[in-house]
Amino acid sequence: MERITATYYIETPFEVAKAAAVLAGEQSSGTFVAVPNETEELKQRFAARVESIEHLETVTEPAIPGANSKDGKYHRAIVKVSWSIENFGFNLPVMISTLQGNLYEITQFTGLKLMDIDLPESYGNHYSGAKFGIEGCRKLTNVYDRPLIGTIIKPSIGMSPEQTAEIVKTLAEAGIDFVKDDELMGSAANSSFENRLNAVMKVVNDCADKTGKKIMYAFNITGEVDEMQDRYEKIVNAGGTCAMISINSVGLSATKKICDNGALAIHAHRNGWGMMTRHPLLGIDFKAYQKIWRLAGVDQLHVNGIQNKFWETDDSVVNSIESLKTPFYQHKNILPVVSSGQWGGQAFETYRRTQTTDLLYMAGGGIMAHPMGAASGVTALQQAWKATVDGLTLEEARSQYVEFDKAAEKFGK
Amino acid sequence: MERITATYYIETPFEVAKAAAVLAGEQSSGTFVAVPNETEELKQRFAARVESIEHLETVTEPAIPGANSKDGKYHRAIVKVSWSIENFGFNLPVMISTLQGNLYEITQFTGLKLMDIDLPESYGNHYSGAKFGIEGCRKLTNVYDRPLIGTIIKPSIGMSPEQTAEIVKTLAEAGIDFVKDDELMGSAANSSFENRLNAVMKVVNDCADKTGKKIMYAFNITGEVDEMQDRYEKIVNAGGTCAMISINSVGLSATKKICDNGALAIHAHRNGWGMMTRHPLLGIDFKAYQKIWRLAGVDQLHVNGIQNKFWETDDSVVNSIESLKTPFYQHKNILPVVSSGQWGGQAFETYRRTQTTDLLYMAGGGIMAHPMGAASGVTALQQAWKATVDGLTLEEARSQYVEFDKAAEKFGK
Repeated sequence: MERITATYYIETPFEVAKAAAVLAGEQSSGTFVAVPNETEELKQRFAARVESIEHLETVTEPAIPGANSKDGKYHRAIVKVSWSIENFGFNLPVMISTLQGNLYEITQFTGLKLMDIDLPESYGNHYSGAKFGIEGCRKLTNVYDRPLIGTIIKPSIGMSPEQTAEIVKTLAEAGIDFVKDDELMGSAANSSFENRLNAVMKVVNDCADKTGKKIMYAFNITGEVDEMQDRYEKIVNAGGTCAMISINSVGLSATKKICDNGALAIHAHRNGWGMMTRHPLLGIDFKAYQKIWRLAGVDQLHVNGIQNKFWETDDSVVNSIESLKTPFYQHKNILPVVSSGQWGGQAFETYRRTQTTDLLYMAGGGIMAHPMGAASGVTALQQAWKATVDGLTLEEARSQYVEFDKAAEKFGK
Repeated sequence: MERITATYYIETPFEVAKAAAVLAGEQSSGTFVAVPNETEELKQRFAARVESIEHLETVTEPAIPGANSKDGKYHRAIVKVSWSIENFGFNLPVMISTLQGNLYEITQFTGLKLMDIDLPESYGNHYSGAKFGIEGCRKLTNVYDRPLIGTIIKPSIGMSPEQTAEIVKTLAEAGIDFVKDDELMGSAANSSFENRLNAVMKVVNDCADKTGKKIMYAFNITGEVDEMQDRYEKIVNAGGTCAMISINSVGLSATKKICDNGALAIHAHRNGWGMMTRHPLLGIDFKAYQKIWRLAGVDQLHVNGIQNKFWETDDSVVNSIESLKTPFYQHKNILPVVSSGQWGGQAFETYRRTQTTDLLYMAGGGIMAHPMGAASGVTALQQAWKATVDGLTLEEARSQYVEFDKAAEKFGK
């Protein structure tokens, strides 16, 4: 029978093997005393199994509150645990309750992070994954051999639909590939979803009629299920190609339902992610996280950016991009969304470390606040990526491209 | 205009007021440079506002990774920030993206926990809250003046529908009020949802015909949206009264959609909660969390239990129960689900500290592994609660009640 294997980074004041056994017990039989119906046969079939333990360092301070150590020592280890897929079949939320769930409550751990999930072959057939993915998003925007260049409407909140459409027009004329609502913008008092959709799509469609290029606008449909479904259909009817969902705020089941429609590329915004991963010994690593959302069927997923304005290290960002580059069954690969404090200068390090242009490269202020205007902001980003793929250094790119040089002057340190 | 105010417990190596301003800026205009369309008028209307700062202790080690301190000091504070409801209206997922979202990414914080949310009056009218709540669950089970006594089918996973039904029969005959699937049990290879529903409801309905008391069985419908909806309807058609959802695994939007049906009491299992709250300076406190789920409309919500087997302190459990006791608009109050390592002995301390019997008091092994059998396990719990409300001590209850005495002998320390 196929099994699902989870890899945990754990810390415990107890013997690691004993703590691992508690984990496996809690997540299969799940009670603190033996009960009459738990036969040996049932255990064999349904019990979680500790597959391996790799001991790491021992420390003297617990990472998070839990049981006290009698000898003042806390042992770290990588532990692999497996479950038969007979336990829950094809049910992602129950899988999450099994692989995460009450695990984070166990007092025997003073640290627990889900690092990776190995999923069986049958999952690749049951779930179809991204409907568009990288290839579909490239086709929709007609961009090949370089990253899709995108921006976020700023200020995040407050502009009228007409002002938003005006900016989209400027950006579209400047040759941008992708524009998105901010995650804070759903339907605001002065910019209802419908009005914004209509104003923006008029510009997008007009521009497409003129130039043959339809920019991808990710309308933020984050909301209740029926509301999201309704807005999704409105986007389809208006000729749009993309919807954005704040996946952690909406949750897995509703996001999957929207993805299942299959008519729009789904831009998955991971805001709230910091809560789940920022502590090194609590929560979930992106490597595991992205698999869940690829099964759900999103087409684009945020990974932060090199030299970002947030807490995340470049190594962590690179690892996230590598996770998304890894093939996943026969599914379409999905587009890493690079953003946060980007202005083009980071293109060089991003390309050096990931060797890919299969990215949606987003700049907010980096485009909108370009000293020569938003159109030059777009040009500067295209220049940065052309330069880096051509093997130029940042300084060489500055001397060759005036818009990029002006961006570097304003945004570079 | 009405505002929503969030209270954060934060830690920062910077001046607290400056870090708070970054928080407010990120969650309204949201970019790292001034952009052309951000007028003073827009800022006044849509900008987040720092309402108050209460300085707490300064420490020398950061709680979680973030910006380094130049003087080796990290300042803790309680910070209140408010937003106009014009920013997102009645949209809980966008509210979460605003109040949490990218906040956890901000490098200026080396700790950030959402402690509470103050919601405006209009939210109480827009959202109807629990359809059943405490009063509805009491009516459905015909239990007044004491906690509802409940148990979880154990082993969590592996029993056939017939075995499950057999146990439910024993428990129902013993006078139990509530039984639930484990959160690990959705639809397993040897116990499909439909077969389990049919087998269990036959017993529940038969027993109700005989005794006039229909026990509440919480079938775990956790899954995709359509699957949950389908199973929900099957429960209704079979005469059931309750459905269980692992709310963190399913997510907010799908859970709300199921709650909106209004025909079944919704048992909200919070597995995965530890990840969000276990670190003292990361995530969200139960006080804020329960408000979101009360708006979504759940009827019963887990709070762990006094002297539980998990990491959580008794103080934290008591605070959670107090949060749920707090009135919330004109909405029905919801039932705190007390569980984890409970056997009846904790009834005394639970009542002493919370002074309420408006609880769903759950024991798994504490009932199923009672030395005189499951029926005596139920009796022992009823005895424990009667004794504590009557003012008896645990020892006095032991000498008065034989089943409780046997429970104490086996499970008490």
